[in-house]
Amino acid sequence: MSMAANTQSRAEEVIARCRKLASFSEDAGSTRRTFLSPPMRDCHREITKWLIAAGADVGVDAAGNLRGFYGGAQSSAPRLLLGSHLDTVPNAGAFDGILGVVIAAALVESLENRRLPFALEVVGFSEEEGVRFGTPFIGSRALVGKLDEELLNRQDSNGVSVRTAIKNFGLNPEEISGAALADDTLAYLEFHIEQGPVLESLGRPLGVVEAIAAQTRMEFEFVGRANHAGTTPMHLRHDAIAAAAEWIVAVERTANNHPGLVATVGQIEAKPGATNVIAAQARATLDVRHKSDEICGAAANTLVRLAREIAERRGLSLRQNVLLSQRAVAMDPFLVHQVEEAIRGTGCQPHRMTSGAGHDAMILAEKVPAAMVFLRSPGGISHDPAESVEVEDVAKALECGLHLLDQLASSSEFQKRMCRA
Amino acid sequence: MSMAANTQSRAEEVIARCRKLASFSEDAGSTRRTFLSPPMRDCHREITKWLIAAGADVGVDAAGNLRGFYGGAQSSAPRLLLGSHLDTVPNAGAFDGILGVVIAAALVESLENRRLPFALEVVGFSEEEGVRFGTPFIGSRALVGKLDEELLNRQDSNGVSVRTAIKNFGLNPEEISGAALADDTLAYLEFHIEQGPVLESLGRPLGVVEAIAAQTRMEFEFVGRANHAGTTPMHLRHDAIAAAAEWIVAVERTANNHPGLVATVGQIEAKPGATNVIAAQARATLDVRHKSDEICGAAANTLVRLAREIAERRGLSLRQNVLLSQRAVAMDPFLVHQVEEAIRGTGCQPHRMTSGAGHDAMILAEKVPAAMVFLRSPGGISHDPAESVEVEDVAKALECGLHLLDQLASSSEFQKRMCRA
Repeated sequence: MSMAANTQSRAEEVIARCRKLASFSEDAGSTRRTFLSPPMRDCHREITKWLIAAGADVGVDAAGNLRGFYGGAQSSAPRLLLGSHLDTVPNAGAFDGILGVVIAAALVESLENRRLPFALEVVGFSEEEGVRFGTPFIGSRALVGKLDEELLNRQDSNGVSVRTAIKNFGLNPEEISGAALADDTLAYLEFHIEQGPVLESLGRPLGVVEAIAAQTRMEFEFVGRANHAGTTPMHLRHDAIAAAAEWIVAVERTANNHPGLVATVGQIEAKPGATNVIAAQARATLDVRHKSDEICGAAANTLVRLAREIAERRGLSLRQNVLLSQRAVAMDPFLVHQVEEAIRGTGCQPHRMTSGAGHDAMILAEKVPAAMVFLRSPGGISHDPAESVEVEDVAKALECGLHLLDQLASSSEFQKRMCRA
Repeated sequence: MSMAANTQSRAEEVIARCRKLASFSEDAGSTRRTFLSPPMRDCHREITKWLIAAGADVGVDAAGNLRGFYGGAQSSAPRLLLGSHLDTVPNAGAFDGILGVVIAAALVESLENRRLPFALEVVGFSEEEGVRFGTPFIGSRALVGKLDEELLNRQDSNGVSVRTAIKNFGLNPEEISGAALADDTLAYLEFHIEQGPVLESLGRPLGVVEAIAAQTRMEFEFVGRANHAGTTPMHLRHDAIAAAAEWIVAVERTANNHPGLVATVGQIEAKPGATNVIAAQARATLDVRHKSDEICGAAANTLVRLAREIAERRGLSLRQNVLLSQRAVAMDPFLVHQVEEAIRGTGCQPHRMTSGAGHDAMILAEKVPAAMVFLRSPGGISHDPAESVEVEDVAKALECGLHLLDQLASSSEFQKRMCRA
């Protein structure tokens, strides 16, 4: 069987497996699988079965991450991590996160017991979405030594702490430090659906992430004066909705004028909120992202300045407030280049892109070189049962993964890293 | 005592009377006096006392309107109506409506039993605000024969109908037709606070209303597509908030480009309404007013067209819906001119203006020539306990009223009307 035919049927299997795993849910009729919830056990059991059959040793670390170790040609071989997360949002699709784990397992299977100069460790992170405890990345934080006391004590809506959830699952929270990355970890590679429309709009199955965007979230409140919509002439108004609208147009224009910048006003509320009363207050949120911290920060500053100018010119006051400020995380340039080559090896044009959303790779990148491969998201749809992925794209991802493993196995630069590990 | 000194002390009395009447309230600590509520009886009693002392005959018609008749020089003299409304909104000021009734009574007092070629009828309308039954102008509708069965059967939030409220007040709803305007009614004149900032901004105490604005109220819904604020590039968005904002800017620009037009978006709501999610839906209301039906209608049509163009260009759909469409009502040109002359007689510059809000004069104008005099509203504030009026402005209004009565008494054109009545 040719590689293409082989990966095609394996891709169908990957999708079938994701669909099956999506049935392990806390909710009847829809997928919801939060940190160490009962269906997570079914998920572990299923993936463990495949990994053991493929020749890996499998366990669950104290942070609830599934860890499958597939040794290298020599017992001293350092390891390459392949993974993503196993948890989901409520009413989730079948691919966000878990597709990366199922692809990692399929890559190990594809080796058919062939051993590489490096070991492979498949990781299924226990928590990335932040649904149960309001804080994301609990699983990957454990690998970089950041699942600290504060996070362990954080409680879900039922008053159950992360620590207690770990104990209830039959794990020992005192052993969290044992979940840390092994010293011989070479790099981290994550396959993930794009969750956006870029690859689809370009007609490309795969993209390589070169950075995870910097992100600033703010809220703005324009305060003017309520007045009668019929008796107040235009030039005597201090209309908070009109001010906010002028600013929202400027937000969009600013983003359009800076390549790669995205800026969103996703929430707007106005008071008193009557048809015949000029609004006294308008509250709007801002979400700005760019791969460059400088550009993201400068854009946020520009938008604060524009809001001030608009408010001042209209005789309104302005209050603004930073809700979140997150720095950009670069992926490893060597790995990014290798992924690009591997995508070319499948006959596809790679697309270098910024991830606008956060991912486990962002956390891992603090400690080890990391890279991500994005698979085209039909309709850009994610966090929705309609989330999907094309079987052909999964086949390309599998081919890309195999090319990449071969490239790394024969790369002199990667071998130098292996000596250091 | 000079006329100026006389009207000054009478103006102080007018304000003191309004403050006293504001204490007749359904609520402790704030003014609220709805249709035929118990405090309306106190209000009637107080005004009746002044009118009887001034030489008028006073009664309450079957629609609850206070009617004070001050006969002319001859018993067959036709009548000029002077009035406004006695009801209030909740948490009201002391002047909206009732100031016009108190000024009318003060004008009768100022005549000091002098009789004019026409009779004066002071009317204190029972209902204008629409608070109790959700329908405004119950009092003035009775005068033009439009307090019909449907309105009589309308119920308040306690299930009490207009008819029952009339009976409970000791009046007979079968006698509503007797509340109709007398055949000898020459015209209707209403003094009212402006409830807007125009006169204050011009530094003028008094204005004359030449029309009550046409009014169109609509709601618009822009429907785009929810998407991830981080992963969706600007050019692939269908952002409902951004579309609504562009349109709101166009609403304001359209109003600024047409003298006398006011256009307001007073309500905006967006879904799903998360900081990091592009909005799928944005609902906004529109309130457009102008003294010309054509301009008001054309502006509404323009704004629908602009909303459609914006939605189409952005790949959104649009739904819109007319909530209210009310034609403009012209005041009587002869009376408007006479009021202008009377204002000039007080040494002030008159200002011709459109009333953006509805008033009893709008209803009366269906049957008789009508005009309104606006008194400057400090800060443009109304429907609020901070609502006020300057004593000097009330003095000017009284002077204006006396000039007007004298002008009409000696006007050959008005005398012609009197022959017709």
